[in-house]
Amino acid sequence: MKCVRCGARASVRLRRHRTSFCEKCYTLYFERQVERAIEEFDMFRKDEKVLVAVSGGKDSMSLWNVLLEKGYRVIALHIDLGIGQYSRSSRGVVEKFAKEKGAELIVYDLKERYGKSLRTLIKERKKLVPCRICGTVKRYVMNRVALEHEVDCVVTAHTLDDCCAFLFASLLSWDLEQISRQDVLLDAGEGLVRKAKPLYRLTDEECRLYATINSIPFVHEKCPYSRGAISIQLKDMFDQLEKKIPSVKQQFYFGFLRRGKKAFQKNVKEASLVPCRICGMPTIEGRDLCFFCTLMRGEK
Amino acid sequence: MKCVRCGARASVRLRRHRTSFCEKCYTLYFERQVERAIEEFDMFRKDEKVLVAVSGGKDSMSLWNVLLEKGYRVIALHIDLGIGQYSRSSRGVVEKFAKEKGAELIVYDLKERYGKSLRTLIKERKKLVPCRICGTVKRYVMNRVALEHEVDCVVTAHTLDDCCAFLFASLLSWDLEQISRQDVLLDAGEGLVRKAKPLYRLTDEECRLYATINSIPFVHEKCPYSRGAISIQLKDMFDQLEKKIPSVKQQFYFGFLRRGKKAFQKNVKEASLVPCRICGMPTIEGRDLCFFCTLMRGEK
Repeated sequence: MKCVRCGARASVRLRRHRTSFCEKCYTLYFERQVERAIEEFDMFRKDEKVLVAVSGGKDSMSLWNVLLEKGYRVIALHIDLGIGQYSRSSRGVVEKFAKEKGAELIVYDLKERYGKSLRTLIKERKKLVPCRICGTVKRYVMNRVALEHEVDCVVTAHTLDDCCAFLFASLLSWDLEQISRQDVLLDAGEGLVRKAKPLYRLTDEECRLYATINSIPFVHEKCPYSRGAISIQLKDMFDQLEKKIPSVKQQFYFGFLRRGKKAFQKNVKEASLVPCRICGMPTIEGRDLCFFCTLMRGEK
Repeated sequence: MKCVRCGARASVRLRRHRTSFCEKCYTLYFERQVERAIEEFDMFRKDEKVLVAVSGGKDSMSLWNVLLEKGYRVIALHIDLGIGQYSRSSRGVVEKFAKEKGAELIVYDLKERYGKSLRTLIKERKKLVPCRICGTVKRYVMNRVALEHEVDCVVTAHTLDDCCAFLFASLLSWDLEQISRQDVLLDAGEGLVRKAKPLYRLTDEECRLYATINSIPFVHEKCPYSRGAISIQLKDMFDQLEKKIPSVKQQFYFGFLRRGKKAFQKNVKEASLVPCRICGMPTIEGRDLCFFCTLMRGEK
């Protein structure tokens, strides 16, 4: 098995591309895929300021590294959710990497800022799926910090696997509005910073390989609340399907972006946004408080 | 575990409906679901003539039985595909059942009529997936026989599992035209008889139960060409998903019928049909021969 690029002995095989790489050329491939995503969708330019959300996992650490290596103006944001050892390990990994790289990092401690950790919020809202609460918190904090730091684009490390799972989840319930919002680039709106997913062309496994080959540290533990999460089950399902039908993930997600998405846009009218009474951040018209403030106030 | 309907000891548990039935009430449930599908979509009336396609498998044998029991004007059509022991067993089961029930049955022997069995067609077209060839043959023969017998509606035994697998397969490639054609009722067109799927509310497993409880014979062998078929893999995938998320199949497919489908209709213009030069049956405009005649002539 030879590297398709340089002819050296290959150590990485990518079944979905029917190709093999040596470690060095795999790194080039991975970084090129990130750059290709950024350029193809005009996600952000090198002179713009981007905020990359880093959990400490293999995907976000890989993305952060690529953005730094490629000379983007990047600030990293780590949200300390306060869920025990998992949060302590994650924060440790992120802080150490930032120091070694001399990279700009904002650590946002949820409990310190709002008096409540994610663990507390989850306990207060037993009827809600933890991922729902965590997603709200993360999206809120990312956008808020991005506005405060006058950042041009918020960048998240959603991979092809994440994109497939989210898209399929929204298709399972045929919520047309939710389907129409699936994208790799969400334009800025009133009070909302532009959002981009430059890893949408790469899988979880490819991120793990990139991080390992390039000695990028990452947290190996899984979030204690992720067990049984629908998104994990759907990702497993796509992994199994990919083994049987190589490249099915990219076929499904790229096909949606190129052909499927347009079917949904005509059917959905965008929700109007109004400022939340407490924090002034955007919320859906007709609501007094945004969901984040509702959670933080412990209201039901 | 008690039967939700009569309180007797239940022997069937339907997780997706969170309910249990005794054998007698399960039979009522099953037949009611078929009738509900027929009525809800106005598939066909009791005074209309319907042609039910029976392979000899659990699904089509169950459907045939329900239609006979409920007093529909039904003719069964069995296509003898000529694929060895599997075809011989299937034909035997169907002929025996028709005789016992005094039911009208047409056996259409492919080799006898056209000089070629499905096995021959598959050998001649090694590049095509066998299911593609078989599907073409079955759809063609069903429609042709329906026209010859002046039938009002062709009825197939596609179950909820089949519908989910087909819909998901079409979503994997985001072929908008193919997605928009997914339905439980296809209206008649020029040279095309109306088609309906009255089992769309019931699963494969529920058909197996109905057939077993009511001593309806069916072929237990699987089609020798079905190994590795994408549709089987997608059905397995939905089975696994259903175990984790009960009722996910009906949520996905019923949701598509109620909400999803409308998104696609506006994006697709229907293909114009013209008569095939050889057989006169409808084919897509621009083609000289229909795909069935192309296959039968051995043309590439």
